[in-house]
Amino acid sequence: MLSIALDAMGGDHAPDEIVKGAVEASARYGIEVVLVGDPEAIERHLPRSRPRPSVVPASQTIGFEESPAKAVLNKPDSSIMVGLRLVKEGKAAAFVSAGSTGAVVCAALFLLGTIEGIERPALCLIYSTPSGPSLLLDIGANADCRPEFLLQFAYLGSLYMKNVLGIPNPTVGILSNGEEAGKGNRLVRESYKLLKSSPLNFLGNVEGKDLFRGTARVVVTDGFTGNVVLKANEGFGEALFEQFAGQLKDGLKYRWAAFLLAPLLRAFKRRVDYSEYGGAPLLGVRGNVVVAHGRSRAPAIGNALRLACRMVEQGLPQALEGGGLNVSAGIGR
Amino acid sequence: MLSIALDAMGGDHAPDEIVKGAVEASARYGIEVVLVGDPEAIERHLPRSRPRPSVVPASQTIGFEESPAKAVLNKPDSSIMVGLRLVKEGKAAAFVSAGSTGAVVCAALFLLGTIEGIERPALCLIYSTPSGPSLLLDIGANADCRPEFLLQFAYLGSLYMKNVLGIPNPTVGILSNGEEAGKGNRLVRESYKLLKSSPLNFLGNVEGKDLFRGTARVVVTDGFTGNVVLKANEGFGEALFEQFAGQLKDGLKYRWAAFLLAPLLRAFKRRVDYSEYGGAPLLGVRGNVVVAHGRSRAPAIGNALRLACRMVEQGLPQALEGGGLNVSAGIGR
Repeated sequence: MLSIALDAMGGDHAPDEIVKGAVEASARYGIEVVLVGDPEAIERHLPRSRPRPSVVPASQTIGFEESPAKAVLNKPDSSIMVGLRLVKEGKAAAFVSAGSTGAVVCAALFLLGTIEGIERPALCLIYSTPSGPSLLLDIGANADCRPEFLLQFAYLGSLYMKNVLGIPNPTVGILSNGEEAGKGNRLVRESYKLLKSSPLNFLGNVEGKDLFRGTARVVVTDGFTGNVVLKANEGFGEALFEQFAGQLKDGLKYRWAAFLLAPLLRAFKRRVDYSEYGGAPLLGVRGNVVVAHGRSRAPAIGNALRLACRMVEQGLPQALEGGGLNVSAGIGR
Repeated sequence: MLSIALDAMGGDHAPDEIVKGAVEASARYGIEVVLVGDPEAIERHLPRSRPRPSVVPASQTIGFEESPAKAVLNKPDSSIMVGLRLVKEGKAAAFVSAGSTGAVVCAALFLLGTIEGIERPALCLIYSTPSGPSLLLDIGANADCRPEFLLQFAYLGSLYMKNVLGIPNPTVGILSNGEEAGKGNRLVRESYKLLKSSPLNFLGNVEGKDLFRGTARVVVTDGFTGNVVLKANEGFGEALFEQFAGQLKDGLKYRWAAFLLAPLLRAFKRRVDYSEYGGAPLLGVRGNVVVAHGRSRAPAIGNALRLACRMVEQGLPQALEGGGLNVSAGIGR
C-alpha cells in the first residue's frame, strides 16, 4: 500500500497534534504516513519506538493569514507544496493538510491540475440522511464562483455518487433561499438555467432545511455559502449541546437521566462534532487531497487520514475522470 | 392601543391557521387584530362569539411563485398592499404577513419608503447568546446586495441595539468564511473596507460558528446567505431533535430518562423551533412590518403578532430614524 503525505505544519495545533495524530493512525489503522515539514519540530513529537511515520523535510510554512496565490508562488519548499509534489510524483497516494484551505487549493491547481472538463476543484462534504448519502459541494475552495463552476460541481458530485457510491442517476439540487424556480441570488438563477439544460438529474432549488432531509443526493453551492452554512451548523450544534449538557448537570434527577442517556448524548455529540468528519475531499484535481479542519487535533487528523485511504481505495480521482463530462452518457440513467 | 393588520391570505396554511392565530392572540394577549383578505374565506374560520378580529376586505392574493415586483404592481387590492396601506394611513400600527417575503418587501418599499440614509430594508433575527442579545441581518429581504447595503444594515442594526435595547457602542461583524481580513467573497471584501472606515464599532469578519457565541452584537450579511444559513440551522436542529427524540422512544430505560428530561427536551425543541421566533422585523422602512415564516400555523402567527406589538412599544421605526446615519454621533460611544 502507498503512503499518505501529511502536512505536519498546517493547522491551529501544528505540529504537535498533527504528529500525534499520524503516530496514532499508524498504530491503530496501519496507515503508512509521511510527515512533511520542519524535521526538528517533527522529531520533537515523534516517539523513539518503531515503527514511526517517516519524515520528508520542507523548510517553509504557509500561514492562515497569507494570500494563498502569493504564498504558493513564493514558498516552493513549503510543507503544502512539498507534500503535493509527492502526490504528483507518485511517491504518495494522497495528501492531507489542516493548513490554509486557499493555499492547498491553489497549490493543488498549480501542481496537479484539474481533470477534464473541470475548471475549479471543489471541497465536498459527504453526509448521511434518512434517504441515503448526500454530497454538498463546494464547501470552501472557491469563495467567488461563476455559473459554469456550479455546473461542473454538479458533474463532479454526480460522477462521485454514480461511480464511487454506485447510485444511478443521482438527483441534483442547487442551494437557494426558496424552492420556487426564480428564487436565489444572481449566481443561483444563472446556474439554475445551466443545470436545467444539462443531462443531469436536476431537481431545482433546495433550501437549507432540505440538506439534512436528503431531498437531493448532490447539492451544489458556491464555496462561500457552503462554508458559512457548515460553520454555522457547527456552532449551532455546539451551542445546543452545551446548553443541554449544562442543564443535565443541574439537579439530581437530571444527573440520573444523564447516566441513562450517556450513549445517546455521545451519539448526539458525534453528530455535531466536526472532528468526526475528518476532513473534506478536494474533488476535481488529478490527485487525492483532503483538507482537514484548521482546529483539528490528533483524533481529527486520524479521521482525515482514514478518509484519504478510503479515497485511494475508491479509485479516486480516476473514478471521476473520463466520465465523459461533456456527454449525457457520462452520468447515464 | 392601535391595531395590528394581519395578512389573512399569506402562508402555507392561510387562511384557516392565520385566522385561528388572530383569534387566539386577541383572546390571550388582548391584541386588536385587523384581518386583511377575502371576507368570505375569513368569515368561515371566525367564531360567532364576540369579541372577534375585524376584517378589511382585499380582493387579490399574491402567491409565493409570483414575481414580487410584478405582483405588487398588478395587484393593488392584494391583501399585502391593502394591509400596508393601513399602516401608511395610520389606521394600523403594524403589518404582519406569512406570505411572499419578496412581495412584502417590494410593497413596503413602494408604499412606506425607507428611512433616511437607507436604500434597502433588511429582515433581521434577534436572538440570545451567552454574552447578550445579537442581531443578524439581512436574513432574506435582498438576495443580491451591494457593499453599501451591508454598511446600511450595519447602521440599522447598531441603531437598534443602541436606541431600542440600550446597548452602547454595539460591536459589528460581517459574516464570512474565515476570520482573517481578506477572507470572504467579493461582496464581503468590499463591504469590509466600507465598514472599516465607518464610525461603527467594527470587529471584522465573523464565522458561522461565532453567530451563537455572541462574538458581535450585530452581524451583517446579504439576504441570500442569511436566509440559507438560518434555514440550514432550522433543518439541522429538526434532524437532531428527531434523531434524539426517536431514540428516546426505544427501550425502557430511555423512556424513563425521557420522562425525567421532559422539561429539558421542551426547552431544546423551543430553541430549534422557528415558530417560537414568530417572525422577522423588516428594519429600515417607514412603518412596522413583520414577515412571518411561510410555514406558520396559529401559534407562530400569535408570536408574530406579539413581536409586532413589541416593535410598536419600542417606538420603531422612529427609534431608527433621525439617528444621524451619516454622522458618527448617531451611533455614539
